[in-house]
Amino acid sequence: MDKLNLGKHISGQFTAELTAVMSKVLAMGGLVERQLADALTAIQENDTQLANSVITADNKVNQLELEIDAACTQIIAKRQPTASDLRLVLGVLKAISDLERIGDETCRIARVALKTFDKDQEHLLVSLENLGQLVLAMLRQVLDAFARMDEEAALLVHQQDVKADRQYEALTRLLMTYMMEDSRSIPKIMDVMWSARALERIGDRCQNIAEYIIYFVRGKDVRHASAEVIKNTAEGAS
Amino acid sequence: MDKLNLGKHISGQFTAELTAVMSKVLAMGGLVERQLADALTAIQENDTQLANSVITADNKVNQLELEIDAACTQIIAKRQPTASDLRLVLGVLKAISDLERIGDETCRIARVALKTFDKDQEHLLVSLENLGQLVLAMLRQVLDAFARMDEEAALLVHQQDVKADRQYEALTRLLMTYMMEDSRSIPKIMDVMWSARALERIGDRCQNIAEYIIYFVRGKDVRHASAEVIKNTAEGAS
Repeated sequence: MDKLNLGKHISGQFTAELTAVMSKVLAMGGLVERQLADALTAIQENDTQLANSVITADNKVNQLELEIDAACTQIIAKRQPTASDLRLVLGVLKAISDLERIGDETCRIARVALKTFDKDQEHLLVSLENLGQLVLAMLRQVLDAFARMDEEAALLVHQQDVKADRQYEALTRLLMTYMMEDSRSIPKIMDVMWSARALERIGDRCQNIAEYIIYFVRGKDVRHASAEVIKNTAEGAS
Repeated sequence: MDKLNLGKHISGQFTAELTAVMSKVLAMGGLVERQLADALTAIQENDTQLANSVITADNKVNQLELEIDAACTQIIAKRQPTASDLRLVLGVLKAISDLERIGDETCRIARVALKTFDKDQEHLLVSLENLGQLVLAMLRQVLDAFARMDEEAALLVHQQDVKADRQYEALTRLLMTYMMEDSRSIPKIMDVMWSARALERIGDRCQNIAEYIIYFVRGKDVRHASAEVIKNTAEGAS
């Protein structure tokens, strides 16, 4: 359900400031989502130009993190928010830190796309496709949930991370068998392994953002809680 | 230089709250430092009991993160801190997130200590020793710097991360040659590789904490800045 209700403040200026911060966060999220989509395409299509654009975009993402962080600090100092306003601002501060790290991970993936893979090594890159698409979908969904502070959508993303972890483990095992079969390719396989790990971490960070959404809506910090507690909290049952 | 001056508030209660938060952060830091030291010992001495204690301790670290986070949120809502007080509270919120993730990384290392390594594979574990000790020293120093908000000490930790990165890269290359020589050991070598990566990440997180210290003292956010800008900022030259 949509729980982001920014129009409730007595001060129109305060509402405007929060709205401005939220649109910057969504712009930052959009950039990071584009970085991930492009990094995956660069990997699959061996597109070095696209890979370089992912790496270049990271400056902009970093810059946005600093700007949003400064704006949130300003809002806290000037507006002295409490209750759900404070939870929103603190949630934003945490979410942008995760988004920035997701940007870093996409650069790691893009750097692998800059390397040369032989024809008989290309199947290695293809092996990243499923996990990549799953994690990209998680990122899209969690950003969408964040825009609307939709705790039900956040819960769905949170629950998908199990699937991402399982795919990641299967991929890791597969890559290890490739290593055993073809020791010459080990350095290349390691690059793919790091990309797989980067994707798994992005999944974890989507899960973090989902937790901030649930915290904003329900006022309960569900980090480190069991899957069941998180589900009950998101559904308003506890 | 020691810049943490908590006794300056008109409200003694506010000072008491900030002092309580800081001592909790230092307790959390002490726990995480112990986790890392124990994980390294467990790896070197094949001590599964110690490794298990590292993993168990993580619940306490997670719990402390939630408690400190809630206390900081309370302080912001009730005390409406500004200037350096606000920077301190926001710095604490960020630092505990890094500390919690360092705790997670130490668990990854401890889990490797739970695995069985043959006599002829034990050199793999030994290869982690140098990087492990360097990163442990960085963690100790940055916690010490945080306790005193000492930006000069923070800068020294920040600068050491280059060394940690270099050691990590050399170790990764070494481990890859082991893989090529002995494909049977690849799964074990991968475990060591993940531990090395965990150590490298802990170094990065120490660097993050160093940046929060510099931000607290100088009021300037140096994340994503060049090494030179960070140096100048920490030294008060900019």
